[in-house]
Amino acid sequence: MRKGSVSRRRFLQAAGAAAVWVPSSVKGYTVAEMRSLSAEGEIQEDISKWELDTPALCVDLDALEANLQTMQRTVAANGIASRPHAKTHKCPAIARRQLESGSVGICTAKVSEAIAMFEHGIDRILMTTTNVTSVKIERAMGLRRWCPGFIQATDTAENARDLSEAAQAIGINADVVVDVDSGGHRTGIPPGRPALELAQLVDRLPGLRLAGLLCYDGGSQHVQGFAERRARTLDRVAPAAETKVEMERAGLNTEIFSGGGTGTYNIDHETAGLTDVQVGSYVFMDAQYLAIGGATDPEVYSDFEPSLTILTTVLNSQYEGQVTTDAGAKACTINQPWPIVKGETGMTYRSGSDEFGTLRYDDPSRTYRTGDKLELIVSHCDPVVNLYDQMYAVRNDRVEGVWQIAARGMST
Amino acid sequence: MRKGSVSRRRFLQAAGAAAVWVPSSVKGYTVAEMRSLSAEGEIQEDISKWELDTPALCVDLDALEANLQTMQRTVAANGIASRPHAKTHKCPAIARRQLESGSVGICTAKVSEAIAMFEHGIDRILMTTTNVTSVKIERAMGLRRWCPGFIQATDTAENARDLSEAAQAIGINADVVVDVDSGGHRTGIPPGRPALELAQLVDRLPGLRLAGLLCYDGGSQHVQGFAERRARTLDRVAPAAETKVEMERAGLNTEIFSGGGTGTYNIDHETAGLTDVQVGSYVFMDAQYLAIGGATDPEVYSDFEPSLTILTTVLNSQYEGQVTTDAGAKACTINQPWPIVKGETGMTYRSGSDEFGTLRYDDPSRTYRTGDKLELIVSHCDPVVNLYDQMYAVRNDRVEGVWQIAARGMST
Repeated sequence: MRKGSVSRRRFLQAAGAAAVWVPSSVKGYTVAEMRSLSAEGEIQEDISKWELDTPALCVDLDALEANLQTMQRTVAANGIASRPHAKTHKCPAIARRQLESGSVGICTAKVSEAIAMFEHGIDRILMTTTNVTSVKIERAMGLRRWCPGFIQATDTAENARDLSEAAQAIGINADVVVDVDSGGHRTGIPPGRPALELAQLVDRLPGLRLAGLLCYDGGSQHVQGFAERRARTLDRVAPAAETKVEMERAGLNTEIFSGGGTGTYNIDHETAGLTDVQVGSYVFMDAQYLAIGGATDPEVYSDFEPSLTILTTVLNSQYEGQVTTDAGAKACTINQPWPIVKGETGMTYRSGSDEFGTLRYDDPSRTYRTGDKLELIVSHCDPVVNLYDQMYAVRNDRVEGVWQIAARGMST
Repeated sequence: MRKGSVSRRRFLQAAGAAAVWVPSSVKGYTVAEMRSLSAEGEIQEDISKWELDTPALCVDLDALEANLQTMQRTVAANGIASRPHAKTHKCPAIARRQLESGSVGICTAKVSEAIAMFEHGIDRILMTTTNVTSVKIERAMGLRRWCPGFIQATDTAENARDLSEAAQAIGINADVVVDVDSGGHRTGIPPGRPALELAQLVDRLPGLRLAGLLCYDGGSQHVQGFAERRARTLDRVAPAAETKVEMERAGLNTEIFSGGGTGTYNIDHETAGLTDVQVGSYVFMDAQYLAIGGATDPEVYSDFEPSLTILTTVLNSQYEGQVTTDAGAKACTINQPWPIVKGETGMTYRSGSDEFGTLRYDDPSRTYRTGDKLELIVSHCDPVVNLYDQMYAVRNDRVEGVWQIAARGMST
């Protein structure tokens, strides 16, 4: 243990207020130093998160674990499974915890993301996006060759034929699900006859094995109010559910009927035949999801705890009523609602500038000093995570590990 | 040369239309393949940008070089210099070209960015942000030890003393400039007496050498209309110019008076005593800057050519009037105005979703196919660049190199 680190940590925790003053005698830890300390696994030193160089992305392990448990308990009670979307966290350490907590697999949005996950030991992967170019189809089928738990979505007959050809070329039999449009017209084939015919084609094509269908209605997830959200999502996914029945009548395999997300995780089991939810944000929560309201609290969606925060440092405090911090759009994105300043009331954050955060506060008696640390609950977790190469795994403010965001930037 | 690549390229160029159809017989090149081809320097193979796996960030070399020349010609004619801000491109290959074209140095916003640039051979660096924590001050002074061309900004007396202490501890004499607030109250010390006294303190403190001052008015840069922009920026920077005169009267060194940006590069020389402009976006241009209007064209800021684009592929075209592409917020950010679809009229882009772009088009006779490629002029270059690990250097659609965005994600 580093000399003096216990007393430093005690001091930092004793600071109590949400804005934490870190004395200049504290050296601080850079990303490189933290990576080196964690190279052997869990960090043995006693390092407070307040000692981290900023901006720093942190995940609170107690909150993360509580979220995993809540999800698993709920879906199990409702007779379905979870297949969490790794596009949210892009982090193999979290994917492993999701599988360990009982999830049947993970989802990815991009083939490069799927490959990064597989390279880090995750071997049950549903790719929810159709790959339409030769290079991506080859990569997906190449992944399937080494990863029998890889499942690929498709949404046109032409694409199914391309998949079939690529699978045959390398001598595999690839699992495929049909992506059914929920009416958002973003991805997927229309439900009913078009989807059924595509499923039949997949079932017939050599090199492919029909595994079922998926239907994700992104537009439902952030609908304000539980009743409104429930009504919309059940309505939107109903045509896919009917398609599933038609597929069964036609003797097709429908072992997977995947859909839903964090906003509808406790509603989706009401869609007949749905097998699993592609929940993403529940692991972290964020300001956007907190604002949609839940089944019990119409104001705040409190089913899950915010676990993902950004630590930031005050760079300038010489102007009344505002401070400038080191976390701007490149550390927070410009998604709205703006990040929430944890534990501080009457303080609003804006990341309108690329490099700097601007925080305004109402209470003129409140003072902040240059060097003070603040903690932000992120606005929208997915694109924020995609800005960082690592997140610090923290319990009771102590850094337990440095988790690689292995699929960061994997947009291809 | 790869077999068949010439005929493929000819075909792709002949496609002509802005939406380019790439036949499925074209294999395509992944990031890893392109990096491997460029490992020895310039790419010898004949690869069209349309063969790249997408989303792909591309910089057009003819446009980039024209922008460098326009900037250098203008500032030279106006009797000042350019000191381009590397926060925009985070790319050593571009920083090198800026220095080669006559810039007196580069700027960085973060110390990690400065270190990344130095590690890639860039040795004239002005860090425009004050470092306020021990870890960052130590890193900055440590950089200065190896890089005599490193200059650090400061904006409080306390910080100047911290810098002095850190510089003395390692036996260096560090160049420091005073950051003067333009009235935006984001960073910097107020002009007049406070700034003058800080400059005097820096001049006195052991281990430091006063090199002058900087004053950046971010708020001026995107003011719509040349006359309005000119009036605002000259007004905002005037107090700093007066402070410079006071510093000179006090016998202080003011060899650097840095400020301005892409929006005011042809105005800033009118501020008495200003030595160089911290221009960033001019290398790339973007939809935000195009919209502010220029000295000759009130509608479009046409001084510089858009050189930075994102190649994207149509993933879904089965719904009328819209297509879904593979470049969403994680590839484009959600900055507005939205990216401009190059060469396509009546088509509007939205990256409201993290993974997918949605493009709507008015003309019902226009058709797009799944697999078609589109090219987007980026919304706001700085945060877009920060999403990618590399950009493809392209001339006449041929990929000449893969440039590492070495300071990508360097937010600390």
